[in-house]
Amino acid sequence: MPVATQGALRHIDLSFADDLGYQVLLANTYHLMIRPGVEHFQSNGDLHSFMRWPRSVLTDSGGFQLFSLSKQIRITEEGASFRSYTDGRKMLLSPESSIATQRAIGSDIMMVLDHCIPSTSPVTDLRKALQLTTRWAKRSLEARGDSKQALFGIVQGGCNQELRSESASEITQLAFDGFALGGLAVGETRAEREDTIEFAAPLLPDDRPRYVMGIGTPIDLLEAVRRGADMFDCILPTALATQGVAFTSLGKVDLRRGIYRNVNAPLDKDCACRTCQRFTRAYLHHLVKAKESIVQQHISIHNLTFYRSLMYRMRQAILGNSFSEMYGKEADKIAAMDLEFPTVTE
Amino acid sequence: MPVATQGALRHIDLSFADDLGYQVLLANTYHLMIRPGVEHFQSNGDLHSFMRWPRSVLTDSGGFQLFSLSKQIRITEEGASFRSYTDGRKMLLSPESSIATQRAIGSDIMMVLDHCIPSTSPVTDLRKALQLTTRWAKRSLEARGDSKQALFGIVQGGCNQELRSESASEITQLAFDGFALGGLAVGETRAEREDTIEFAAPLLPDDRPRYVMGIGTPIDLLEAVRRGADMFDCILPTALATQGVAFTSLGKVDLRRGIYRNVNAPLDKDCACRTCQRFTRAYLHHLVKAKESIVQQHISIHNLTFYRSLMYRMRQAILGNSFSEMYGKEADKIAAMDLEFPTVTE
Repeated sequence: MPVATQGALRHIDLSFADDLGYQVLLANTYHLMIRPGVEHFQSNGDLHSFMRWPRSVLTDSGGFQLFSLSKQIRITEEGASFRSYTDGRKMLLSPESSIATQRAIGSDIMMVLDHCIPSTSPVTDLRKALQLTTRWAKRSLEARGDSKQALFGIVQGGCNQELRSESASEITQLAFDGFALGGLAVGETRAEREDTIEFAAPLLPDDRPRYVMGIGTPIDLLEAVRRGADMFDCILPTALATQGVAFTSLGKVDLRRGIYRNVNAPLDKDCACRTCQRFTRAYLHHLVKAKESIVQQHISIHNLTFYRSLMYRMRQAILGNSFSEMYGKEADKIAAMDLEFPTVTE
Repeated sequence: MPVATQGALRHIDLSFADDLGYQVLLANTYHLMIRPGVEHFQSNGDLHSFMRWPRSVLTDSGGFQLFSLSKQIRITEEGASFRSYTDGRKMLLSPESSIATQRAIGSDIMMVLDHCIPSTSPVTDLRKALQLTTRWAKRSLEARGDSKQALFGIVQGGCNQELRSESASEITQLAFDGFALGGLAVGETRAEREDTIEFAAPLLPDDRPRYVMGIGTPIDLLEAVRRGADMFDCILPTALATQGVAFTSLGKVDLRRGIYRNVNAPLDKDCACRTCQRFTRAYLHHLVKAKESIVQQHISIHNLTFYRSLMYRMRQAILGNSFSEMYGKEADKIAAMDLEFPTVTE
């Protein structure tokens, strides 16, 4: 799922994400409840019509902001209190207000409000956070009422197996339409993350989608799919485009570098995206140096094509019963995709 | 002509300008000779293939930078000396180096290097500038050699009729493919500009295109066409989009304003552009407030559609022999398009 936090993808027209075949975008409840606000959606219609996206939307509950903005937010049993960054008014993000906002946004998949803390926190803190997450999960289900929108529960517990078991056992007893592993990509190593997914994914029902929140790099996705995960959201494709960095099958290409000044070849000769079909690295490098913002669109389209293609190939391998074979052949290559491409080869 | 100074339109993919029916883009010799440099085009191919624009390109000679960057540039009979803003190397923009660069860029229409000074300068300065412009024009024609690219001459002389006569008489004796009025929109009032175009346009051959450089607002275009001008370049459609401002038939809409927060209507209900067909003012306002850069693309597409439509209607009126009628009916309305739309009418 590409990330459209505030109802827009960074750099690119949503219609390109549609063209590329993406089926779900992620939008953020915390940001949208601040602006344009829940009343806006209640009076004017839902996010699909607001941003003109015909496919599905998943809304993050705001739980991640409880982590990333923890210094500005006060968390109690009731919920998270904070001040709006637009006008300073006091606001409350509770399980109930999060669901009410997500109902007004009209997302196809709502997420429960969870308490996300650093995955490397002391066990007592992690246990408190997961217990609060469970209590909030029950209140979220209650608040859902008769909404036809799907609602996913979130399993917490950091990198601690005992806590992940406890959380999964509590959350999977509740009538959710899908389950997420939260609290990852927030401080742990890649090995710890993979071990946690390996341990926790099988604790989730295999007839419901399993969503690992907030990851990741190409190898993160491969390793997580291998361990049974289905869904991901990640800002990397568009965030790296902001810096002028593109993914390729041979590693990341940093278009700021002078070595691309005269490279009359596309980012990836095997890529069928609009950018690779039209532009050379030399031209993209020129636009980066000239600070022409349109280059971020060109790179975003390429990076989103790259991610879509990676996920598509994994899906096809699973359907064709050849995922292990794909993994054996490609894992090293996919791990290297996150490294910087070292040399020029025209 | 939309302005693609460094080989890219601000905010939007060139393919949208193609979709809108624009036939010529303007690119800038001064900037392109600094980066990627004349050698780049000589070795790697021309600007059309670099930026993937299938239609025509007109290259400004760099004359306008002699005006806008006059403090960093030293002008002698030979040409203009300056230091590259990328690496500080000394460079010379002369009639010969400008044409050599434009030949390498492969523009369809090249412009002679002219000496552009503020239109309100003392007569002695204006006369010196126009005389230098004439000498440079002759050297430019010489430098053109056997190039099949068109080359336009430029008439200078500020707002002084005697000087415009003198310049037009000298320049139109030379074998150019078209003629431009330079030295406008550089300090004079709108009335002075219109009087100068009214006086000078008829001094140009009526079987060659007449290009008024660097204007302008909708009413500037209407008044200039009425006085016999054919071609224009202007950054306004994309420059205003940067600020969040859109043209409409009822005046400019500043999408930063809170009055648009709940306006569920497009920028212009009669506009057929991608933006008006899809998005409300409320959504565009939201994106401006959220600092989502994609909104600049949405507004640019609308503004370029607006300009294209205005020019198209004038062309149709001329072909249908009804331009005076159009002018009589619409001049006041078109003049008001440059004012800010005063109230919300929803």
